[in-house]
Amino acid sequence: MSVSAGTTRIITMEGNLNSSFDMDQRDPNNLNNHIQVQWSDVIGEPESIRSNDCIWNCSYKCYRGTKNCCYQSITLIFAPLVAFCMGLQFACLAFQHIWCYVPCIRCLKINCSVVRDVITIILQALCAPWIETCGHCLSRIKVRYQRISDLQQEEDLLTV
Amino acid sequence: MSVSAGTTRIITMEGNLNSSFDMDQRDPNNLNNHIQVQWSDVIGEPESIRSNDCIWNCSYKCYRGTKNCCYQSITLIFAPLVAFCMGLQFACLAFQHIWCYVPCIRCLKINCSVVRDVITIILQALCAPWIETCGHCLSRIKVRYQRISDLQQEEDLLTV
Amino acid sequence: MSVSAGTTRIITMEGNLNSSFDMDQRDPNNLNNHIQVQWSDVIGEPESIRSNDCIWNCSYKCYRGTKNCCYQSITLIFAPLVAFCMGLQFACLAFQHIWCYVPCIRCLKINCSVVRDVITIILQALCAPWIETCGHCLSRIKVRYQRISDLQQEEDLLTV
Amino acid sequence: MSVSAGTTRIITMEGNLNSSFDMDQRDPNNLNNHIQVQWSDVIGEPESIRSNDCIWNCSYKCYRGTKNCCYQSITLIFAPLVAFCMGLQFACLAFQHIWCYVPCIRCLKINCSVVRDVITIILQALCAPWIETCGHCLSRIKVRYQRISDLQQEEDLLTV
Amino acid sequence: MSVSAGTTRIITMEGNLNSSFDMDQRDPNNLNNHIQVQWSDVIGEPESIRSNDCIWNCSYKCYRGTKNCCYQSITLIFAPLVAFCMGLQFACLAFQHIWCYVPCIRCLKINCSVVRDVITIILQALCAPWIETCGHCLSRIKVRYQRISDLQQEEDLLTV
Amino acid sequence: MSVSAGTTRIITMEGNLNSSFDMDQRDPNNLNNHIQVQWSDVIGEPESIRSNDCIWNCSYKCYRGTKNCCYQSITLIFAPLVAFCMGLQFACLAFQHIWCYVPCIRCLKINCSVVRDVITIILQALCAPWIETCGHCLSRIKVRYQRISDLQQEEDLLTV
Amino acid sequence: MSVSAGTTRIITMEGNLNSSFDMDQRDPNNLNNHIQVQWSDVIGEPESIRSNDCIWNCSYKCYRGTKNCCYQSITLIFAPLVAFCMGLQFACLAFQHIWCYVPCIRCLKINCSVVRDVITIILQALCAPWIETCGHCLSRIKVRYQRISDLQQEEDLLTV
Amino acid sequence: MSVSAGTTRIITMEGNLNSSFDMDQRDPNNLNNHIQVQWSDVIGEPESIRSNDCIWNCSYKCYRGTKNCCYQSITLIFAPLVAFCMGLQFACLAFQHIWCYVPCIRCLKINCSVVRDVITIILQALCAPWIETCGHCLSRIKVRYQRISDLQQEEDLLTV
Amino acid sequence: MSVSAGTTRIITMEGNLNSSFDMDQRDPNNLNNHIQVQWSDVIGEPESIRSNDCIWNCSYKCYRGTKNCCYQSITLIFAPLVAFCMGLQFACLAFQHIWCYVPCIRCLKINCSVVRDVITIILQALCAPWIETCGHCLSRIKVRYQRISDLQQEEDLLTV
Amino acid sequence: MSVSAGTTRIITMEGNLNSSFDMDQRDPNNLNNHIQVQWSDVIGEPESIRSNDCIWNCSYKCYRGTKNCCYQSITLIFAPLVAFCMGLQFACLAFQHIWCYVPCIRCLKINCSVVRDVITIILQALCAPWIETCGHCLSRIKVRYQRISDLQQEEDLLTV
Amino acid sequence: MSVSAGTTRIITMEGNLNSSFDMDQRDPNNLNNHIQVQWSDVIGEPESIRSNDCIWNCSYKCYRGTKNCCYQSITLIFAPLVAFCMGLQFACLAFQHIWCYVPCIRCLKINCSVVRDVITIILQALCAPWIETCGHCLSRIKVRYQRISDLQQEEDLLTV
Repeated sequence: MSVSAGTTRIITMEGNLNSSFDMDQRDPNNLNNHIQVQWSDVIGEPESIRSNDCIWNCSYKCYRGTKNCCYQSITLIFAPLVAFCMGLQFACLAFQHIWCYVPCIRCLKINCSVVRDVITIILQALCAPWIETCGHCLSRIKVRYQRISDLQQEEDLLTV
Repeated sequence: MSVSAGTTRIITMEGNLNSSFDMDQRDPNNLNNHIQVQWSDVIGEPESIRSNDCIWNCSYKCYRGTKNCCYQSITLIFAPLVAFCMGLQFACLAFQHIWCYVPCIRCLKINCSVVRDVITIILQALCAPWIETCGHCLSRIKVRYQRISDLQQEEDLLTV
Repeated sequence: MSVSAGTTRIITMEGNLNSSFDMDQRDPNNLNNHIQVQWSDVIGEPESIRSNDCIWNCSYKCYRGTKNCCYQSITLIFAPLVAFCMGLQFACLAFQHIWCYVPCIRCLKINCSVVRDVITIILQALCAPWIETCGHCLSRIKVRYQRISDLQQEEDLLTV
Repeated sequence: MSVSAGTTRIITMEGNLNSSFDMDQRDPNNLNNHIQVQWSDVIGEPESIRSNDCIWNCSYKCYRGTKNCCYQSITLIFAPLVAFCMGLQFACLAFQHIWCYVPCIRCLKINCSVVRDVITIILQALCAPWIETCGHCLSRIKVRYQRISDLQQEEDLLTV
Repeated sequence: MSVSAGTTRIITMEGNLNSSFDMDQRDPNNLNNHIQVQWSDVIGEPESIRSNDCIWNCSYKCYRGTKNCCYQSITLIFAPLVAFCMGLQFACLAFQHIWCYVPCIRCLKINCSVVRDVITIILQALCAPWIETCGHCLSRIKVRYQRISDLQQEEDLLTV
Repeated sequence: MSVSAGTTRIITMEGNLNSSFDMDQRDPNNLNNHIQVQWSDVIGEPESIRSNDCIWNCSYKCYRGTKNCCYQSITLIFAPLVAFCMGLQFACLAFQHIWCYVPCIRCLKINCSVVRDVITIILQALCAPWIETCGHCLSRIKVRYQRISDLQQEEDLLTV
Repeated sequence: MSVSAGTTRIITMEGNLNSSFDMDQRDPNNLNNHIQVQWSDVIGEPESIRSNDCIWNCSYKCYRGTKNCCYQSITLIFAPLVAFCMGLQFACLAFQHIWCYVPCIRCLKINCSVVRDVITIILQALCAPWIETCGHCLSRIKVRYQRISDLQQEEDLLTV
Repeated sequence: MSVSAGTTRIITMEGNLNSSFDMDQRDPNNLNNHIQVQWSDVIGEPESIRSNDCIWNCSYKCYRGTKNCCYQSITLIFAPLVAFCMGLQFACLAFQHIWCYVPCIRCLKINCSVVRDVITIILQALCAPWIETCGHCLSRIKVRYQRISDLQQEEDLLTV
Repeated sequence: MSVSAGTTRIITMEGNLNSSFDMDQRDPNNLNNHIQVQWSDVIGEPESIRSNDCIWNCSYKCYRGTKNCCYQSITLIFAPLVAFCMGLQFACLAFQHIWCYVPCIRCLKINCSVVRDVITIILQALCAPWIETCGHCLSRIKVRYQRISDLQQEEDLLTV
Repeated sequence: MSVSAGTTRIITMEGNLNSSFDMDQRDPNNLNNHIQVQWSDVIGEPESIRSNDCIWNCSYKCYRGTKNCCYQSITLIFAPLVAFCMGLQFACLAFQHIWCYVPCIRCLKINCSVVRDVITIILQALCAPWIETCGHCLSRIKVRYQRISDLQQEEDLLTV
Repeated sequence: MSVSAGTTRIITMEGNLNSSFDMDQRDPNNLNNHIQVQWSDVIGEPESIRSNDCIWNCSYKCYRGTKNCCYQSITLIFAPLVAFCMGLQFACLAFQHIWCYVPCIRCLKINCSVVRDVITIILQALCAPWIETCGHCLSRIKVRYQRISDLQQEEDLLTV
């Protein structure tokens, strides 16, 4: 995600906190971009073959009505329940990460930094000279190049 | 799909929602671009050999009539039924993804981010120095190059 | 097939649907471009050896007459029958693709998108650090290059 | 074969159909370019050794006469017969390709297009993340390069 | 982390030490950037399918209230306790690193520097000549190149 | 053979057919360029060692006379006979190629073109997605490069 | 470490020797850059979830007070003792390196220089010709390249 | 051998045929360039060590006299005999090549050209699609590159 | 070591021989650059945690005093003794190298130069033609390249 | 050896033949460049250690006198004898090469040229199509590249 | 060794032969450049730790005196003896090379040149066509490349 996008996002967050959230654009972070269930995302007739117009219109209305009714009745029952459970879950998750995991990672970083230095120093002294000596193998490459004039053509042996 | 195409698409969607859908262009997303069943997509006579004109005309009309009648009679029976079933299916599918799968993926992301940090720190301390030491092998490459003048030609041993 | 060609094609299709189809150019999509059965595609005499003129002319007319008569008598019998069968077959095929296969593919796409996200997140956390650590191997490449003056020539040991 | 050549060819074809064919240029498509049976394609004496002039002249006339007589007598008998058989054969061949094989290939194309989509979607979800993770191996390449001044010469250890 | 960022950081540190710390921006080092538990980070409805407005509003408020209450009650109990323990732990850790580990690493550096010199000298004398001799293998590369004019096209054998 | 050469050749052929052939330049197509039997192609004395002048002259005349007499006496007997046999042989060969082999190759081309299409379509559907997925391995290459200033020299450990 | 940095460092050293050392900047060589134990290096709350202000303030003060008291009490006891031991150790270490190890390395360098010359001369005489002969394998590379015009597009076999 | 050289050669040949051959430049084609038997090609004393002047002069004259006498006496006997045998041999060799081998090669060329076409057509239909499908493996290469500023230096871990 | 550095060094040597040596800069050749035993090279407190000022000052003085006293007392006893032994050792070493080893290396060089020539000549005659013949394998490389316009984008199959 | 050098050489040769040879420059072709037996090529004392002046002078004169006396006494005996033997040997060698070996090589060249043509024609017909079909594997390479802006820096995970 | 250096050297040699040799610069060819036995090449005290001034001065004088006395006494005895032996040895060595080895190498060169020609001609006729046919494998490389605009950024899946 680019820098300008990040800047825009922070502004959006502040706006969300201070004022009410947005009823129209319900997926600003494009979480469910893969859910493409429009009529034109599912059914399409090419130019070369077409059904009757009323059949096409009837099918479209049938699909649209069934889809909306069914989804709204399901969300009426389960959506607040799901929201409540997620509130509890993410609060505990955030506490664990902020107050437990991240300080331990800081502690691990400080210790591993010393371990890396010790290993690197010993390897630099004992192994690096062997490796560098083997690397001399590639130190004598010599390339001579020559441009051939374009007039020389390649003969096809069989044809002529 | 390019950016301009995406912009155009959103505009199209808005239009679809507010007004009636388009009866003429029935496949705006090119879902069934591979169904090429025009007469000229199936039968073609090259310049060098041709049938009689009336035979050609008769065959064309026979193919076109049979194809359209058959397709429209099938869609008259099955199209609304298919549309109804798809409406139910995609409503349930959308609910599962929006309220169940995506929040779980968010939870998984937060946890995996910590796991990745821990593994990366330990690998940076224990394994990275060994790998970098082996990488010294390529640090002594030396290339000398020389341009040969174009006048030097290659002799063919057998001919001259 | 390029963009301009596609544009031209759509225009051609519209024209085909509204008006009568073209009697002269019977293969606009170049379906049977490989059928080259002209006299000059089959028989040719090079400059260095030639038959008598009347023999050449007689053979040409014999080939041309036989080919056309035979082809037109075959198409007179079988062409409309073939067109009828193809009409039925492609109508069923189009229905299956438009109303069955493509919606199922859409459903499969939505589900696979989530599966891909889950697998990618877990791999990013568990496997990516190992791979990136191995990739350090190539992070120490150092190339020194030198241009040799053109005056230095290569000696041939045996000749001089 | 280039575009301009193709254009020229179509013009030639039209001309062939409307008018009589060309008696002089009997191989416009270069079908028998490999048959080089001129005297100068078979026999040649270099500068450094030469036969007598009359011997050379006599051999040339002997070769030319024998070749033409023999070829023209053979074609007088067999050419029209060959042309008749080829007429029958290519008419049947053209019917099979135009009315049978090419429509079946169109049907096969439409079905295979769906199969390819299904396989691609499943592979994108299940296999692509593993492959891309392995591809991280090459994401840390770092190349440092240095130009050595031309004055540094390479010493030959043994000579000096 | 870039240079300018480092400069900014030091200034921030000084400011933190001399004055009170910042109550508003509680994560200046982006430690917990991965914890994205906003409503718009978890739930999103695409354009093509939407629940009822009151259901959407109710779910949002339910999630927000639950999350904040739960988190603040947990931190009220455990946060100062965690802070006290971390104070002790990091003080001991800092003493160990400053007064024990880093001086030992300095001592190890001084000794390994001599070991590396000894190994390098012996390898330069005994192994480097063998390696460099093998490297002569690449010293005779000669490349001749030629540009083909763009007019030469590649023929497709089967089509034409 | 280049284009200009081909143009020149056709002109030469026309000239050969209409007028008498060329008595002086007996190998216009360079068929026997490899037969170099001049005295200076066989015997040469370098600057540093030379035989007596009369010996040198005598040997030259002896070689030249023997070679020419022998060759002209052989050609006097065998050349017209060889020319007659070659006339018969190449006439039969040309008839076989023009009237038999090349039409069969045309027939083979038309059939193989369809076979290639069928194989390609099936492979595109079944195998191409697997191969393309494996090709993702190379889609994450990232190269960082850095120019080292020319002043940094490489130290030779042993000398200084 | 760059040149300018080295220059700066020497000046700093001279300053340290002549005047008193610096009480404010206690780590001029960045030895302990990895010890990041500020409050903002350990604990951070993202925008999306925040604890109460007084809890946040209380935790901060608790952490800061505990850390400083603990560290200063430990250093009060152990710091001078550690400094005394390090003084003894580094004095002995410096004597060993200055008067023993470095002169022996000088002696080793002088001897190894001769050994390297002997090995190199023998290898140049016995092995280098074999290696260079094998290197001729790469001396006949010939590359012809051609730019294809951008208008040629790649056709997708299945779609169109 | 270059074009200008070839031109010069033909002129020389013509000159040789019409006039007497050249007594002074006895090796115009550089056949025996490798025979370097001058005194200065065999014996040389470097600057650092020299024999007495009269010894040097005496050795030179001794070598030159012996060499010339011996060579001229040998050629007096064997040269014309060798020239006579070579005359016979090359005359027969030229007849075989001009009248037997080259016409057979022409016949072989014409037949092999058809064989190559048949094999190529079948391979293009049966094997080429498999190979091209495997070639898709390399069609997803993506390289991202970045230039690092020259100011970043590489630290040597042990020294500083 | 660069040229300018070498120039400077010679001047320094001359100065050392003629005048007294330098008491202030005791390591002009940077022999003991790796011995970094300053207080700031061993102990450093980061910004985030600091000990009391008097403790810091006391530790510094304790370290500095101990180090200097200990080192100077050791050198008082052993330094002249070490210098005497090294004087004897390096005198013998120099005599061996100047009068024994280097003349033998010169003798070895002269003999090996002839050995190399003999081996190279034989290899050029017997092995080089085989190797060069194998090198023809790379003499038919032909690369065609094409730039794709930037407008063609890669589609992500799953998302859209 | 370069062209200018060759020109110079011929001039030198002519000069040698017409006039007396050169007494001063006894090795114009640098045959014995490797014999470096000057005093300064064998013995050298570096700046840092020097023997007494009279010892140095005495050794020099001793070496020079011994070397010259010994060499001149040896050459006085053996040089003319060696020159006589070499005269005989090179005369026979030259005769063999000029009158026997080089004509046989010319005969071998003429025959091998035909053999090469026959083998090449058969291989072009039978094997080349298989090889070219396999070469299609590399005909679908597609490289996409992208320049990353220089501002993106690589973070070191452990340090900051 | 570069050209200018060689020029200088010849001048130096001439000077050495005509006049007396140089007493001051005793190693003009840098034979013993590796013998660095100055006080500053062996002993050095870094800035951070220093011995007492009188100790430093005493050690220096002790080393210098011992080294010079010892070396001059050794050379007084052995130097002329070594010079005498070397004179004999190099005189014999030079005779062997000038009068025996180099003429034999010339003889070997002349014979091997013919052997190489014979082997090359036979290989060109029998083996080269096979190798070149195999080299066709690389003659169908086709590379298409595309520049991606810089605005497309790579997303990090876990963080955002």
